[in-house]
Amino acid sequence: MAYRTSVLRLDRDLALRERILACALQRVSEGGFAALTMQALAEDAGIATGSLYRHFRSKGELAAEVFATASQGEVDALAQTLRGPGSPAARLAAGLQQFAARAWHSRRLAFALIAEPVDPEVDEQRLLYREAYAELFVELLAEGVALGVFRVQQLNLIAACLVGAIAESLVGPLSPPARAAREAGRQSLDLAEVSQSLITFCLRAVGAEEPQS
Amino acid sequence: MAYRTSVLRLDRDLALRERILACALQRVSEGGFAALTMQALAEDAGIATGSLYRHFRSKGELAAEVFATASQGEVDALAQTLRGPGSPAARLAAGLQQFAARAWHSRRLAFALIAEPVDPEVDEQRLLYREAYAELFVELLAEGVALGVFRVQQLNLIAACLVGAIAESLVGPLSPPARAAREAGRQSLDLAEVSQSLITFCLRAVGAEEPQS
Repeated sequence: MAYRTSVLRLDRDLALRERILACALQRVSEGGFAALTMQALAEDAGIATGSLYRHFRSKGELAAEVFATASQGEVDALAQTLRGPGSPAARLAAGLQQFAARAWHSRRLAFALIAEPVDPEVDEQRLLYREAYAELFVELLAEGVALGVFRVQQLNLIAACLVGAIAESLVGPLSPPARAAREAGRQSLDLAEVSQSLITFCLRAVGAEEPQS
Repeated sequence: MAYRTSVLRLDRDLALRERILACALQRVSEGGFAALTMQALAEDAGIATGSLYRHFRSKGELAAEVFATASQGEVDALAQTLRGPGSPAARLAAGLQQFAARAWHSRRLAFALIAEPVDPEVDEQRLLYREAYAELFVELLAEGVALGVFRVQQLNLIAACLVGAIAESLVGPLSPPARAAREAGRQSLDLAEVSQSLITFCLRAVGAEEPQS
């Protein structure tokens, strides 16, 4: 009986942990990491703040896990497109377009993942995930170079340049001030413009033929 | 006399504040923000930890000020080259080369400024300084577009792409593991290779004629 009780308890603990993470992701999607306080989260999950700390030692640890969960989803989505059918240049363009569109449709979350000032634990995860993105680009670049359609040499370095360009190009358009400007009807770029500029920038940068537009 | 005493005291306070900042910059240059603890810094400056808190309310505030001081030096150096003599493409190339070289020769500090996981106050400053860099590139891009030597449209977005590409391309080569690899004699890129790849990437990306090499 003792064994069975422990298993049940473990299951319940895991289910509660998942529920806390889901609530946390919801908070970050709506108000960024700034909205992720342990007290508010405990209320969302319907538990005491003390119980929250049984599952996550600190806010930083929790934020890092929310970050990793959300980012892994983005890496997986990008991997699928970059490894999909089509020429390397077409896949690069499709991957950039998809990445920008996903960010655009979850702006608050995307800004939180890319640039919101937050605990060092999240910065650590940012470095790791930028490497994960870079690895995907290295794969694609190697393929394009082998086919003679990309003209680059230091693939790791060029992949890092791509990751940096993509992330930084979205910071401004996704930032809360940009959102306020859009909502107030003041001029700001739309998704199609951002996406097209980013694609042209990256294709040229890797020495691909410019797409006919 | 009371007036004179206050003036003297103010001068002394300012001088001490400057000395604390100089010691802090020295610590970050040698061991990154991780080496910047209030206790060690108080020892360096020869004051009590309590006195340190009279000048800086928190480690985050102090780190942010060290960051801003060091970054402003980089922005000024880059501005001088980007606004110097020569064609826009030549100035872009010279600015990138100089930026990479300065980072290379102060690797620990450069990594701390660009990517080291650290207090949110520093992340805030990172966002501000990336905008300062982007403004310099917008200026140069506008000039190049007017002369017909750069072919880009959304200058703010393209400038952000450049800033992101530059920063991210240096993270890997400057990181402590890369340094350890170099010191152990294992293969890793040298400054000339990084610099040349970055220049080619950026010139192509803005639609400049490729330099004859």
